[in-house]
Amino acid sequence: MARVNENYLKLPGSYLFSTIGKKVAAFQEANPDKTIIRLGIGDVTQPLAPEIIKSLHNAVDEMGKAETFHGYAPDLGYEFLRKAIVENDYKARGCEIEADEIFVSDGAKCDSSNIQEIFAADSKIAVCDPVYPVYVDSNVMAGRTGVYDAKAETWSDVIYMPCLESNGFAPELPKEVPDLIYLCFPNNPTGATITKAQLQEWVDYANKNNAVIIYDAAYEAYISETDVPHSIYECEGARTCAIELKSFSKNAGFTGVRLGYTVIPKELICDGVALHGLWARRHGTKYNGAPYIVQRAGEAVYSEAGKAQLKDQVAYYMNNAKTIKEGLSAAGFSVSGGVNAPYIWLKTPDKMTSWEFFDYLLENANVVGTPGSGFGPSGEGYFRLTAFGTYENTLAAIERIKKL
Amino acid sequence: MARVNENYLKLPGSYLFSTIGKKVAAFQEANPDKTIIRLGIGDVTQPLAPEIIKSLHNAVDEMGKAETFHGYAPDLGYEFLRKAIVENDYKARGCEIEADEIFVSDGAKCDSSNIQEIFAADSKIAVCDPVYPVYVDSNVMAGRTGVYDAKAETWSDVIYMPCLESNGFAPELPKEVPDLIYLCFPNNPTGATITKAQLQEWVDYANKNNAVIIYDAAYEAYISETDVPHSIYECEGARTCAIELKSFSKNAGFTGVRLGYTVIPKELICDGVALHGLWARRHGTKYNGAPYIVQRAGEAVYSEAGKAQLKDQVAYYMNNAKTIKEGLSAAGFSVSGGVNAPYIWLKTPDKMTSWEFFDYLLENANVVGTPGSGFGPSGEGYFRLTAFGTYENTLAAIERIKKL
Repeated sequence: MARVNENYLKLPGSYLFSTIGKKVAAFQEANPDKTIIRLGIGDVTQPLAPEIIKSLHNAVDEMGKAETFHGYAPDLGYEFLRKAIVENDYKARGCEIEADEIFVSDGAKCDSSNIQEIFAADSKIAVCDPVYPVYVDSNVMAGRTGVYDAKAETWSDVIYMPCLESNGFAPELPKEVPDLIYLCFPNNPTGATITKAQLQEWVDYANKNNAVIIYDAAYEAYISETDVPHSIYECEGARTCAIELKSFSKNAGFTGVRLGYTVIPKELICDGVALHGLWARRHGTKYNGAPYIVQRAGEAVYSEAGKAQLKDQVAYYMNNAKTIKEGLSAAGFSVSGGVNAPYIWLKTPDKMTSWEFFDYLLENANVVGTPGSGFGPSGEGYFRLTAFGTYENTLAAIERIKKL
Repeated sequence: MARVNENYLKLPGSYLFSTIGKKVAAFQEANPDKTIIRLGIGDVTQPLAPEIIKSLHNAVDEMGKAETFHGYAPDLGYEFLRKAIVENDYKARGCEIEADEIFVSDGAKCDSSNIQEIFAADSKIAVCDPVYPVYVDSNVMAGRTGVYDAKAETWSDVIYMPCLESNGFAPELPKEVPDLIYLCFPNNPTGATITKAQLQEWVDYANKNNAVIIYDAAYEAYISETDVPHSIYECEGARTCAIELKSFSKNAGFTGVRLGYTVIPKELICDGVALHGLWARRHGTKYNGAPYIVQRAGEAVYSEAGKAQLKDQVAYYMNNAKTIKEGLSAAGFSVSGGVNAPYIWLKTPDKMTSWEFFDYLLENANVVGTPGSGFGPSGEGYFRLTAFGTYENTLAAIERIKKL
């Protein structure tokens, strides 16, 4: 008799953003005359840059002719894209990463949820708290997280690293040594980041304890300060302890285009086994590559014209971040983030819970944000706003919030 | 200390098509003057149909304008595509499937390897032998297959259902009852298929034994005979026991475009749990949707112009199948398949093993096929040729083989 994966049944409620989507849809249905402004989910609003549109059209034309048609992509992704990634994201920053250490994929969400699969079933994971829910939920599904405490909203076998106002939203080295450490800087959801010296401590800690760091650098393009690392491979020794995940969703607006990559250095040996080979095997067996036209679009991200256009796009969003941060500060809110990241992390007023503030904002300002508690217990009492709206909507949302 | 998923280490050798790729590359390097014809991997060669190219260009233009830009797709896929699928692939054939039972994805390879994840870790799987390697390998990675017998090339905990000349390459109902049954008709690799009455027996068997059928209908577009089912939902009772996987790779040439879908009827209850909800949770947590432009291309597959153009494309490949089948028969080979499927399954001559014949063909005719033993022990002594080459190459390959 077929039976289900019981770990799935342990998951509390639905995926955070599905819950928000349903709440917003219900409110809109009940209030068809209200104009809702969405600063909740981290979805971009600016159209694809002209250089990317051009490359997509060119690639589509290629797919329409027998001489230039492309079928199955190479397992790791096309070399033209992997070379562009290496030159721009690594060599230009002095990081030693080779093209055959890059695995092109359809996005960092898939990679960050699938990467756990190459590790032992009883691996102990450590996550920042609050945290992007996918890291934890994918490990729940794999049966790695123990028992759920509904009151505390924590899993018995997960090491939580609180990121609070008191530590500048930067996690501290855990006392109990984990096998896998998920780090994301600039951080989703807090918008905080850490310095290169701080990240070096994590690399040293992982190497010393034979732990593996899964480093999510999805928001790297938003870094504006000089002492903040763009890649974990800027740190000495990272090639023997770190996997890096990157996305094209936020730096190039590819949320609906789908492209990302994972870096696994060949020196990353775990219990005598090279992780590169395991991930290559997974790619070959369970994945069939990102679309050719999308990989060409990814290449355009690294062209001179593409880089210039995307720099403007990032600046546009960061101007939104500034608008939100300054507007809310002026209105008396306690806010952080928004300097090296497109997220603003605000303290809910009047000791409201995160979900109370979500409802309050939706009902009274018709603005959607993300409840901090949805990212973990230490997110309770916080709220995330994103800078990915249009400038006009962002401004209007802040005006509405100010008037509350 | 981080440790790896040891199940990965149990996998013998590399993924079949990676091995073939390396062998062919080595031969080409040693023989740069030889023109190799590839009839091995099931990759298409015809360019995308004009109607699909048109829809891709339109969708790319939409992505370049703020008013029509599309970010994250809905979890299950865009409704315009799911509705087109339901109308054309199901309602038109009298199958009761609703749009919210369709999960759009980036292809049947991912779906067929990921689907096992929603079932219990100790589920017993049954597969045809020979079989598409992904079904077995994905279960090996999940630790579900027991111990590998290198000599027999079988796993201790897998139920193999031999598909041989003696049973018309159709599996028989297994004596030991499995939890999950993988079926693929028209079949990869044998090109054989079964009648609706035969498939009904499987549905009845699954319902009686509370087993779940994972039905891979990737080659459905190649069916030319009337009594062959296009979907398992043509059978009575399939809604309570079957998941269906579909691909756009072969009917529309999307191997490099990446699109597929999975159907999970809401009545499919497993051990008291609706599988639809579990798969929805997986989609929401570990996947971020197929690209908007690709989903628009999928919609074009179902337009009147698209259907007409793709009918011609399928006919082109089936003419290749006929060319291979008739040519090899005339040359004295024993061949099957190629009538309802783009695959020709031939018996190796002179009691050669499958890999011996692979090397023989590569070296002497410079033609690449796929060794039958790569698909399972019962594939030993067989060889797969695909009809997905160009007509000119297909003809040339058969002429070369005839001359051996």
